[in-house]
Amino acid sequence: VEKEGIQNVQFKMADIMDLNFPSESFDHIFVCFVLEHLSHHTAALRELKRVLKRGGTITVIEGDHGSCYFHPESEAGKKIWNCLISCQKRLGCNPNIGRELYPILEGAGFKDVEVTPRVVYVDQTKPLLVDRFIKKTIIAMVEGVKEHALDLELVNEETWEKGIKDLHKTAEPEGTFFYNSFKGLGFK
Amino acid sequence: VEKEGIQNVQFKMADIMDLNFPSESFDHIFVCFVLEHLSHHTAALRELKRVLKRGGTITVIEGDHGSCYFHPESEAGKKIWNCLISCQKRLGCNPNIGRELYPILEGAGFKDVEVTPRVVYVDQTKPLLVDRFIKKTIIAMVEGVKEHALDLELVNEETWEKGIKDLHKTAEPEGTFFYNSFKGLGFK
Repeated sequence: VEKEGIQNVQFKMADIMDLNFPSESFDHIFVCFVLEHLSHHTAALRELKRVLKRGGTITVIEGDHGSCYFHPESEAGKKIWNCLISCQKRLGCNPNIGRELYPILEGAGFKDVEVTPRVVYVDQTKPLLVDRFIKKTIIAMVEGVKEHALDLELVNEETWEKGIKDLHKTAEPEGTFFYNSFKGLGFK
Repeated sequence: VEKEGIQNVQFKMADIMDLNFPSESFDHIFVCFVLEHLSHHTAALRELKRVLKRGGTITVIEGDHGSCYFHPESEAGKKIWNCLISCQKRLGCNPNIGRELYPILEGAGFKDVEVTPRVVYVDQTKPLLVDRFIKKTIIAMVEGVKEHALDLELVNEETWEKGIKDLHKTAEPEGTFFYNSFKGLGFK
């Protein structure tokens, strides 16, 4: 539907390694939580750079699972969080890519690269984040690799259950949680 | 020396567990990188609260050594960083106290506590921080526990030397470094 002042947005799916667009098509490219799931992130960035106009900009937001820590801390809690990292690494991905964003964007040939941290810190003064970040993002994400982690024997079922219980303690009144993503900006 | 518009500041040393001031003496109390070095932080905070006026405020800034990560990452680099944490813990201190600042300030009886993270992220676009933070703060701090760590057999000399070399790589053009402190504010 096109109304006055409202432009159509078209969603298109494509292979990030082989984009079906002419070179220098776009003014800006926005990439969010994508590179961490690729085994060839530089090839993807070079293809994205191809379709970016000269003088255009790219924004890349990526997390870093190695940035995560919490209170109360427990061995089981840390262990199952590290299962998420191990599972993702075994798929050929880089769950700790955030810290590398600067050299990666430079290496892909972008100019004037600027990377800034984007912190999520949660304590009981932020009940929405306790629910949506700790419980519905972090713990949900960890629970998503349970079978994979047990299959790989990275952890046993008993430690898994204890770890999940311990992570829920970080969502209780005494608990705190910290995670950091990075936002990178570069020019072509 | 007292000049127009300039007030004398008097520096006094005292035992933080037994302050030689009457109760309700001060409008504001500023504590920076102190609690991490104490084994009884709550007792210290209660004594600080005693000398704070009703309605007065306290600012507490503390680091969290568990927040530290870097690129390139290496096992030896992580190992010697963890030596710093272990040495401090064995002295009865809490080098990872930052994440606990909220429950600690609440537990000491301060009101309307607000804790915010204070991130240090360094890449080659910040040459001053590369020099002053990575080299002259972080690596210098790690080097300070070398003998203690070797005495405790937390690490051998060869791994130590490799770890120091690896940490210096984070100060090279491809390197990045992340550390997070917390700033807490509370009312009496």
